Amino acid sequence: MDTIKIQRRGRADKIRRAAAQKSASAPAYAIRKIPYYEFMDEEGLVRIERQADWLIQEIGIEFRDDPVALEIWRRAGADVDGVRVRLPEGMCRELCKTIPSEFTQHARNPARNVVIGGNNTVFAPAYGSPFVRDLEKGRRYGTIEDFQNLVKIAYLSPWLHHSGGVVVEPCDIPVNKRHLDMVYAHIRYSDKPYLGMITAKERAEESVEMTRIIFGDDFMESHCCVMGNVNANSPLMFDKVASEAIQVYCGANQGIIVAPFILGGAMGPVTTAAAVAQALAEGMVAGAFSQLVRKGAPFVLGNFLSSMSLKSGAPTFGMPEPTMSNYVIGQLARRLGMPLRCGGSLTASKVCDAQAASESADSMHSTAIGGANYVLHAAGWLEGGLTMGYEKMVLDIDRLGGLQRMLLGMSTDENSLAADAYLEVKPGGHFLGCAHTMANFETAFYESRISDSESFEQWVDNGSKDAVMRAHEQWKAMLAQYETPEIDASKHEALLEYVEKKKASRKDAWY
Amino acid sequence: MDTIKIQRRGRADKIRRAAAQKSASAPAYAIRKIPYYEFMDEEGLVRIERQADWLIQEIGIEFRDDPVALEIWRRAGADVDGVRVRLPEGMCRELCKTIPSEFTQHARNPARNVVIGGNNTVFAPAYGSPFVRDLEKGRRYGTIEDFQNLVKIAYLSPWLHHSGGVVVEPCDIPVNKRHLDMVYAHIRYSDKPYLGMITAKERAEESVEMTRIIFGDDFMESHCCVMGNVNANSPLMFDKVASEAIQVYCGANQGIIVAPFILGGAMGPVTTAAAVAQALAEGMVAGAFSQLVRKGAPFVLGNFLSSMSLKSGAPTFGMPEPTMSNYVIGQLARRLGMPLRCGGSLTASKVCDAQAASESADSMHSTAIGGANYVLHAAGWLEGGLTMGYEKMVLDIDRLGGLQRMLLGMSTDENSLAADAYLEVKPGGHFLGCAHTMANFETAFYESRISDSESFEQWVDNGSKDAVMRAHEQWKAMLAQYETPEIDASKHEALLEYVEKKKASRKDAWY
Repeated sequence: MDTIKIQRRGRADKIRRAAAQKSASAPAYAIRKIPYYEFMDEEGLVRIERQADWLIQEIGIEFRDDPVALEIWRRAGADVDGVRVRLPEGMCRELCKTIPSEFTQHARNPARNVVIGGNNTVFAPAYGSPFVRDLEKGRRYGTIEDFQNLVKIAYLSPWLHHSGGVVVEPCDIPVNKRHLDMVYAHIRYSDKPYLGMITAKERAEESVEMTRIIFGDDFMESHCCVMGNVNANSPLMFDKVASEAIQVYCGANQGIIVAPFILGGAMGPVTTAAAVAQALAEGMVAGAFSQLVRKGAPFVLGNFLSSMSLKSGAPTFGMPEPTMSNYVIGQLARRLGMPLRCGGSLTASKVCDAQAASESADSMHSTAIGGANYVLHAAGWLEGGLTMGYEKMVLDIDRLGGLQRMLLGMSTDENSLAADAYLEVKPGGHFLGCAHTMANFETAFYESRISDSESFEQWVDNGSKDAVMRAHEQWKAMLAQYETPEIDASKHEALLEYVEKKKASRKDAWY
Repeated sequence: MDTIKIQRRGRADKIRRAAAQKSASAPAYAIRKIPYYEFMDEEGLVRIERQADWLIQEIGIEFRDDPVALEIWRRAGADVDGVRVRLPEGMCRELCKTIPSEFTQHARNPARNVVIGGNNTVFAPAYGSPFVRDLEKGRRYGTIEDFQNLVKIAYLSPWLHHSGGVVVEPCDIPVNKRHLDMVYAHIRYSDKPYLGMITAKERAEESVEMTRIIFGDDFMESHCCVMGNVNANSPLMFDKVASEAIQVYCGANQGIIVAPFILGGAMGPVTTAAAVAQALAEGMVAGAFSQLVRKGAPFVLGNFLSSMSLKSGAPTFGMPEPTMSNYVIGQLARRLGMPLRCGGSLTASKVCDAQAASESADSMHSTAIGGANYVLHAAGWLEGGLTMGYEKMVLDIDRLGGLQRMLLGMSTDENSLAADAYLEVKPGGHFLGCAHTMANFETAFYESRISDSESFEQWVDNGSKDAVMRAHEQWKAMLAQYETPEIDASKHEALLEYVEKKKASRKDAWY
């Protein structure tokens, strides 16, 4: 008996080591080896592109409350009528040509640098939820402690490449100061790349300045070390939050992601092709503007489309129309040669149930196959983005590992075809102990850390835990084993000093 | 106030009517309008095909306990060595050429006829579980009452096209008689096409005979009205259950689906490309055999690959390797011009949790995009196929509706591009009440019957029900509203007489 136990323990140890090595060797970002899926035919793509061009040329896009932006457009030769900007034929596409088709966002740990664009995919956690939820404490407003916890979980996850931005709103910190604590948390508790804040010009600037403390002015001048993520005020409108964020980030030669958020039937037409065309128009105009601010600045074309429930008029997620748009916008972005943000593990569900999982899966499958380069909301999203889920975060991350395996494709080399195995194993036999199986089984299959494949009886013996209960145990264990990554002491001190000085310089504001 | 309520009720009624119309007008099967996804390149596909040919020519495939099958092979010119059959170069592919690339399976209601093959997709419920599970009664052995219930639910579901076969094992009926009750239930409680039974030659024959009572001998001679579904005994082996079922079904010019079930590392090599090649070889040999039995008989190339957990050695489902194989086997089947069965809403989970939903979703997304023509296990499957879930069934069906929407693609016609809407709605405005929205909103989006998109507060007010609780209510309501479809009285009487006569002719056997 004891011998068997020891052997079993030996095997378990071996497997744990193998799993640990897999995490350690997980690449800093996913490099796609499989072809793209050409969902829409050439004629359809051209029709959408023509519609986008027509919107840009004839209807125009408004830049509100930002005279500087209007002046930039006027100087560039756009038709500026009040706050409405129309671009003459060809101007928008011409300006977009200087957008880098791929670029590196640097991390303070160079091993974590990510390449955004081309055949690469970068996964980042969900962004912007005021609420947080876990199995023990339920749904509540997010705090800075939750924010730090989520940054730590993302740091420990081999399948998340990026620390994200507002992983949850730290509602216990004044609105005019929380950007400082958030950027600090990304820098201190992770060594992966991150997003700066954008809700006001000052906060965008301070996000860039904090990044300068880590990377240095010279390096930042020619390398992307932080990005901002802003939405268009669809339809066909940018407010100054967006246009100023573009000016701050691109002005410093840092990256900007501009994502139209279109709920079909509200911020855009109810038909999906129109919403895609509008998103393309809004994104291209933002891209052109970014290049007027600074030629060659990193820009990511964003896209966030949702559908609507006929019953309630509420936004729905993971439905076939936005799923299709993930495929189509991927094609359109590649035709422009622009890096693309789209998709995510999206759902309208309030909890981590079957609805949440199936909506997220269809959304993410199309996101990955469709060729998104930067995927915000890849993990944790619940309730249409209102809530960040601890369990949802680790459930989603586990599936991201599987998708990354899929992006590598299926090998058909000699070892994979296993001709030798058929000389060893006869028809009607089994391959369990054959040489080919022994040589390959540790790497043959993606090993989920959440999925349970044991027998019903074993599962009952282990407490009949569903996926959410196992996910709860997993994130708790991750936080228990978390160790803060090393940081240069003087830089860290300068960072803390900067945060304290800024906080002392202004009164708390809660809106 | 009252006026508002009445208006609301009017709107709700209108929406209910629209939803009912959608179900009624749901097509009998899905006709794909979108391109296929070419996941693997030409070189990889050729390598897999060469490996399959090598297995067929050099290793060979065994046909055990069926001297008739061996004699058929011998007469056709195969190299028969004991029970091992090797086919000379080119013979297998030549024989497979007479397999129809698409065929119609007739239903007793002609409006429910399905076309299998080509650009068509037919969804059928899960097959073969001994256990059944629902939220109220938990997990238990299936009974004939469960069987009938599941047939009724499938009948009422617009997104399931086919009644399937052993939707659950009716464990309360003797093993040598249950095929009679199962085929009767498909005929009586549904009017959709169905699968006959295959576990013994006699049961296959009686399934065909019962079908003859409904369709008539003459019609059956030239039309497919029933199909059987059998597995290969992988690796590279068929027992007489499989080879006799092929003889019975194809001998009567009816359809047969032959699906190698390969758990990588057990019934095939642990590397996925090898398992795909082996499945292709086994399927092609079965296809060739079907054509020796009767040239032109309907044959469906089956494929069922699963991966393995490194932790437990147990089969896993919905993982990236079988997901990839859904794409690749689709390419291979199209190159052969053969109808394909693969995929399904597969999972290893014991319950309808996030694991079940995400594994099923990745499996089904690739199944649909990959081009499967007949999808067994499209709804209800739990626990690696050991359990059929009532709630899982309706949850899966709801997602099948979404996938069918996706198969139709994204329209880019004038109405879809909605140029007029931009003349009505200005930048920064909203499209909620505009003419284009009003004209299109009822058909613009797939309307899920399970997903909840209401606010958190509304959801709490409605009892904080997760997707499984809502699914439970849904299938109960479906059964409550079920009405038995009409059937020709004399045929029904003849059918009952046949079943009674056969039951009386043999003693109960429980194995």
